[in-house]
Amino acid sequence: MRKVFVTGAAGFIGSSLVDKLLAKGKAVVGWDNFSTGQPEFLSNALTSPRFQLLRGDCLDADALKRGMAGCDLVVHFAANADVRFGRDHPAKDLEQNTIATFNILEAMRVNGILKLAFSSTGSVYGDTNVFPTPEDAPFPIQTSLYGASKVAGECLIQAYCEGFGFEGYIFRFVSILGERYTHGHVYDFYKQLIEHPGYLDVLGDGTQRKSYLYIQDCLSAVLHVLGRPQMAEGGRRVEIYNLGTLEFCQVTDSIRWVCEHLGLRPDLRFTGGERGWIGDNPMIFLDTAKVRATGWTAAYTIRQGIIKSLEWLQQNPWIFDRR
Amino acid sequence: MRKVFVTGAAGFIGSSLVDKLLAKGKAVVGWDNFSTGQPEFLSNALTSPRFQLLRGDCLDADALKRGMAGCDLVVHFAANADVRFGRDHPAKDLEQNTIATFNILEAMRVNGILKLAFSSTGSVYGDTNVFPTPEDAPFPIQTSLYGASKVAGECLIQAYCEGFGFEGYIFRFVSILGERYTHGHVYDFYKQLIEHPGYLDVLGDGTQRKSYLYIQDCLSAVLHVLGRPQMAEGGRRVEIYNLGTLEFCQVTDSIRWVCEHLGLRPDLRFTGGERGWIGDNPMIFLDTAKVRATGWTAAYTIRQGIIKSLEWLQQNPWIFDRR
Repeated sequence: MRKVFVTGAAGFIGSSLVDKLLAKGKAVVGWDNFSTGQPEFLSNALTSPRFQLLRGDCLDADALKRGMAGCDLVVHFAANADVRFGRDHPAKDLEQNTIATFNILEAMRVNGILKLAFSSTGSVYGDTNVFPTPEDAPFPIQTSLYGASKVAGECLIQAYCEGFGFEGYIFRFVSILGERYTHGHVYDFYKQLIEHPGYLDVLGDGTQRKSYLYIQDCLSAVLHVLGRPQMAEGGRRVEIYNLGTLEFCQVTDSIRWVCEHLGLRPDLRFTGGERGWIGDNPMIFLDTAKVRATGWTAAYTIRQGIIKSLEWLQQNPWIFDRR
Repeated sequence: MRKVFVTGAAGFIGSSLVDKLLAKGKAVVGWDNFSTGQPEFLSNALTSPRFQLLRGDCLDADALKRGMAGCDLVVHFAANADVRFGRDHPAKDLEQNTIATFNILEAMRVNGILKLAFSSTGSVYGDTNVFPTPEDAPFPIQTSLYGASKVAGECLIQAYCEGFGFEGYIFRFVSILGERYTHGHVYDFYKQLIEHPGYLDVLGDGTQRKSYLYIQDCLSAVLHVLGRPQMAEGGRRVEIYNLGTLEFCQVTDSIRWVCEHLGLRPDLRFTGGERGWIGDNPMIFLDTAKVRATGWTAAYTIRQGIIKSLEWLQQNPWIFDRR
């Protein structure tokens, strides 16, 4: 890869990838509509002559086609990442995740760009009862519009790999933690505890078991996989990798680590039920044997990722004024 | 069900369902854009006072919302059913199958209609190597834009079932045969043999093994499942059923049956390769144990379905002037 097109370049994960690619000497075109991306996250990148920022939306197919010209790898990280609120705006996941991915693929096709990395999610396993969940788990039933839209994006990529000779790398992320973390349960807990240190409202009954991965571990996995030799000619054209650690944690574990770090002992007020919201998956724990077999392994624990998220939020209170 | 909204009502399968519903005394609203539907297929239905025909496109979300008012079951059979030509018009499957299905779901939601049947496809199993393929086969990789668009439709339905309390029935069809059959390999073979009885061009090497189901068997399965008691309160909201026979056939079997019926002995000219086209699945054979456990079974063999298709084409030569 000489010139990389990164969508969602001003987001939590996208901007962290941009910095890492620039540090490796790559040229990067960053694409973001700044709906949730933060200009501050690109302040370092913008000092590099190898970085070009394009403000644009993945639903603007023509602008995408123009912007992508001259790149030889696309990392499509732009997405609506709100798993919880799909029911409030049913078209959003379809547009921002499925149709956006189609537009990316078409822009690649007309530009002759054949290599793609895509951020999918452990939520695609929907109602699975296989834990840890491998990439070839039984064909699941979707429970959220977010998961549905990401499966649709994956399937489009697979069809383009088969139909147009693309080389696709689909990464199914667990929740990502760390510097520039701007949404999720640690964000919510910390925000609440600033506002009212005496109590904490918790969705569900606290028994939900989820998995997390530290941002630098996530990016090292993506770059490790992308840096391997090209897939064999005539061989498989698309690979799917679960990304995560070897552990999961329960919501109550996470609460304990957050409260210990902050030196607080709030009353816990659970909303009840085994699911945090309609469509929530009470457990996410991915089998990562496939990516570990390539030589990658996570260096940080979930607890370390949570603390790093908290430290960053403590050092960057401005982020709470942005939403 | 008192009043059924059927999309693709002028199509091969849709119009056959409309006739069957009317014969059972149901009221039916038929929806079709007549892109591939045939007015002749509704000539019987249009004599019934319980049938209303609406000419409309599933991409016209507002018209759908108006047209669906007062119905209590939606059978969504409208689709781009061209598996082979996705590469020629990459947006078509996304629009006609994925976005169309989203529009159907939204129209149902605003009208308070909660029960849906959907025609999916055995192509959703993509690159599977499990035969016969059960509904919970390993999470497959898609090989065609058609398959990708149908998976996306299925996932949207599943998310609406979970998020909005819909009751969904997803039927994964093998290729359907019989009266009003207007596209597929029997159509192609017969058309060729009318034009040049001395030879037959065959995609692939003739070893592709596919499954077929006679239209009346297909519809009896759908109506049998829809007529069962509602899903239990608080129980599962979506069920997926493979539909097919207990057998599959090889392309060369099918050629033999077609040629015997027509009394021809053409030279066979194979294009070669184990796949008929890019994205083709060399074998489709579905495990139908789940639907058979409900008490349904196919009454016709694949060979009988092929002969019935041929007889209908012989009696209805006008169909060849319509495409």
